[in-house]
Amino acid sequence: MTGDVGTWPHRHLLDVDSLSRAEIERLLDLAVELRAALTSAETAERLRSVVIGLAFYEASTRTRVSFEVAGRALGATVVDLDVVGSSVSKGESLLDTLRTLQRTGASLIVLRHPASGAPYLAARGVDAAIVNAGDGQHAHPTQALADALTLREAIGGPDGSLDGRKIAIVGDILHSRVARSNLHALLALGASVWLAGPPAYVRGFDAWPGVTVARLDEALDGADAVMTLRIQLERAAGGGVPSLAEYARVWGLTEERLALARPDAPVLHPGPTNEGVEISAELAASPRSLIGRQVENGVPVRMAVLSLLASAAHP
Amino acid sequence: MTGDVGTWPHRHLLDVDSLSRAEIERLLDLAVELRAALTSAETAERLRSVVIGLAFYEASTRTRVSFEVAGRALGATVVDLDVVGSSVSKGESLLDTLRTLQRTGASLIVLRHPASGAPYLAARGVDAAIVNAGDGQHAHPTQALADALTLREAIGGPDGSLDGRKIAIVGDILHSRVARSNLHALLALGASVWLAGPPAYVRGFDAWPGVTVARLDEALDGADAVMTLRIQLERAAGGGVPSLAEYARVWGLTEERLALARPDAPVLHPGPTNEGVEISAELAASPRSLIGRQVENGVPVRMAVLSLLASAAHP
Amino acid sequence: MTGDVGTWPHRHLLDVDSLSRAEIERLLDLAVELRAALTSAETAERLRSVVIGLAFYEASTRTRVSFEVAGRALGATVVDLDVVGSSVSKGESLLDTLRTLQRTGASLIVLRHPASGAPYLAARGVDAAIVNAGDGQHAHPTQALADALTLREAIGGPDGSLDGRKIAIVGDILHSRVARSNLHALLALGASVWLAGPPAYVRGFDAWPGVTVARLDEALDGADAVMTLRIQLERAAGGGVPSLAEYARVWGLTEERLALARPDAPVLHPGPTNEGVEISAELAASPRSLIGRQVENGVPVRMAVLSLLASAAHP
Repeated sequence: MTGDVGTWPHRHLLDVDSLSRAEIERLLDLAVELRAALTSAETAERLRSVVIGLAFYEASTRTRVSFEVAGRALGATVVDLDVVGSSVSKGESLLDTLRTLQRTGASLIVLRHPASGAPYLAARGVDAAIVNAGDGQHAHPTQALADALTLREAIGGPDGSLDGRKIAIVGDILHSRVARSNLHALLALGASVWLAGPPAYVRGFDAWPGVTVARLDEALDGADAVMTLRIQLERAAGGGVPSLAEYARVWGLTEERLALARPDAPVLHPGPTNEGVEISAELAASPRSLIGRQVENGVPVRMAVLSLLASAAHP
Repeated sequence: MTGDVGTWPHRHLLDVDSLSRAEIERLLDLAVELRAALTSAETAERLRSVVIGLAFYEASTRTRVSFEVAGRALGATVVDLDVVGSSVSKGESLLDTLRTLQRTGASLIVLRHPASGAPYLAARGVDAAIVNAGDGQHAHPTQALADALTLREAIGGPDGSLDGRKIAIVGDILHSRVARSNLHALLALGASVWLAGPPAYVRGFDAWPGVTVARLDEALDGADAVMTLRIQLERAAGGGVPSLAEYARVWGLTEERLALARPDAPVLHPGPTNEGVEISAELAASPRSLIGRQVENGVPVRMAVLSLLASAAHP
Repeated sequence: MTGDVGTWPHRHLLDVDSLSRAEIERLLDLAVELRAALTSAETAERLRSVVIGLAFYEASTRTRVSFEVAGRALGATVVDLDVVGSSVSKGESLLDTLRTLQRTGASLIVLRHPASGAPYLAARGVDAAIVNAGDGQHAHPTQALADALTLREAIGGPDGSLDGRKIAIVGDILHSRVARSNLHALLALGASVWLAGPPAYVRGFDAWPGVTVARLDEALDGADAVMTLRIQLERAAGGGVPSLAEYARVWGLTEERLALARPDAPVLHPGPTNEGVEISAELAASPRSLIGRQVENGVPVRMAVLSLLASAAHP
């Protein structure tokens, strides 16, 4: 049988930091298996009669659709609370809303919330398994796991490890839930991570073992892969960057700048990109770009997460 | 075969008042059967190739999700018109919109509308079966049936009847579609119902056979169960209640106040609650609270309603 | 096997003008087969494990729901980007959004967009098959194909052709994507089309072979069928029509005015109607009205379109 998930020791997926290296590898292995068996009858029965509730308190298209496709490919019933737009039931609290969703039958709840930590609150107050689909500036574990799978397949060793790989992350690390979860995942898989960005946005991260904060040229020098992050227009100024043009000039990734990295080192971006700002349009569209692959891997990684949590939720 | 629905004599479910006691009991019995067979292959085939259209002209999460889960558990295709938010097709009339939905294939239409009576208009103008999911201040039959099932299982006799039971309903009865439908259901099942609330909001209801309007202490005295209702913030004043704090002081249910009722008499609330106003947080979270159970029973009751109407709609 | 679709030579459906008469007939024949086998097990397996993405950049209920029902009846997974309402992911470009949708697994994308030509842009930039569900004032091919099926069954010859039939279209042709696509479909099927409407809104269309621009009485005279179009309230003035009342007086279809056409000539309208303006309420509700049939045929026609494109998309 493909993708025997056995038992999974975690009730929720709140961030990557709670996963061991072996667990991350098992999850990515399952994602690869599910990707290969995406349309098999067995896959379509895996979560039959499981109800997955989507509770997105922040607008999202790509993550929501990715979870919806993942859940349905597994045969689950996916219902969307449709919180954004329709006033959430008369000012009901988050916990009351999620408890109602659970009592309606949802054993897995995918939660996106603008408040960092909201999924932790949910996990303590609700019986359903909580999947963090992005909370404030804190964590975005399924994105990081999709990125980890993408990197493993692009630059990983024969066993899929990132041991000894140098990965540069460029931009506003401080406010990026994607970067924070990626740090956990990449370090767990053995990579060394170099950070470069406006000083106020990278400061202090070298306290993490395995992380180096450096100048951009140092971070890129000999890197096996480079990830750049979306810069929020409204935050550029706060980081001491007077304009997006200035940001692009100083921090924008281009083919030329990437010459410092290893030949053919791939480039990642969690999307959506500001082309011409943090990454040039040419580079984003070049064969070195893994941006499309990151999106594609989002579905099987989320299928793996949902499968594992369902196996844990119904022991 | 579980849940043989036979023929059902009603084309629509507009309110509980059109159902006989035997019909209500049959519907609740079917709900219990379906709840036990929620994930059976037979249940998942019951409404295969039936299209259920959701037309919610008022924001709702719990009722909409509950109908969606119920419909999908029966194997139906559930489509949401998504009326709220997206401007309803260019000012099209309710009947035109519902007719279009029906012509697109929906043989069952679940309608929530802010205008009392709108489902009756719909039922006269559309061939599809109409399920009233709440109309203005008039009726909310599936909520009342879920409440009836909850009460039957909590305080019902051996045959599931509420004969001889005293049930208190506290709050703004006048504007509550939930209370109005509950009156029909509880009286039909044999209960005697005592109402207490701001005088302007309970006046006249003792004209209903089986209903007593009383002071709060009288209503609670020896009650077998107590249901309290959400007080609309904007209506407190209209009922002669100067503030929510004052409402809570006079009408709010607490453990202490509930001491008047029978020992362990359960408490119900249709949700979402204003904790600390019509019900104390302690009481809402106590073992006496059936609030969660009311939500859970919403799904099988709606499955029963959809199954019965589908059997009537396709004779 | 019903509805063997063989190979279909078109990757996308952007408008009807790219289809030959034989292709239109094949598509309509398939729609008829699928309509007869709407709930068969074979139909429900036809697009199993195909993901269809709905990207509606303009509010729509009827077209969106029709595509959703059509896709699900074929067993596809239909996901809605839910663009309207929720701010489209942070100003992301159309192509980036659609590419993300495709990378999430969608091999068919149904696109409605306020900008004429947007689906052509999408077809050039995305690998998925694009179905135009209405673009600005340009085209609405699935509506036109549903209308063609409706007309073929109402007034077509034994072989289903419209050869020698006179069809009048009344109203604002210039701004109507429905009328434009209908012109292509009806002319391809052999009809002669007569246009009548406010002069600024019909001018120049007689340059199309088979099209005659005429006075209303000339257009209606002996017509085999009459289609009237929704007049946009805000455009009445621009066409030299001072008010809707004046529009109704001059161009509104009534039983009396229709006396000029052949006895029992049917009346069509793409909906939603402004009753009492472009069509009288009596006429819209009369047995001559095919308005309901147009909606009903929308589902099987869209099923045929999705089936054919899926067969082309996966050669």
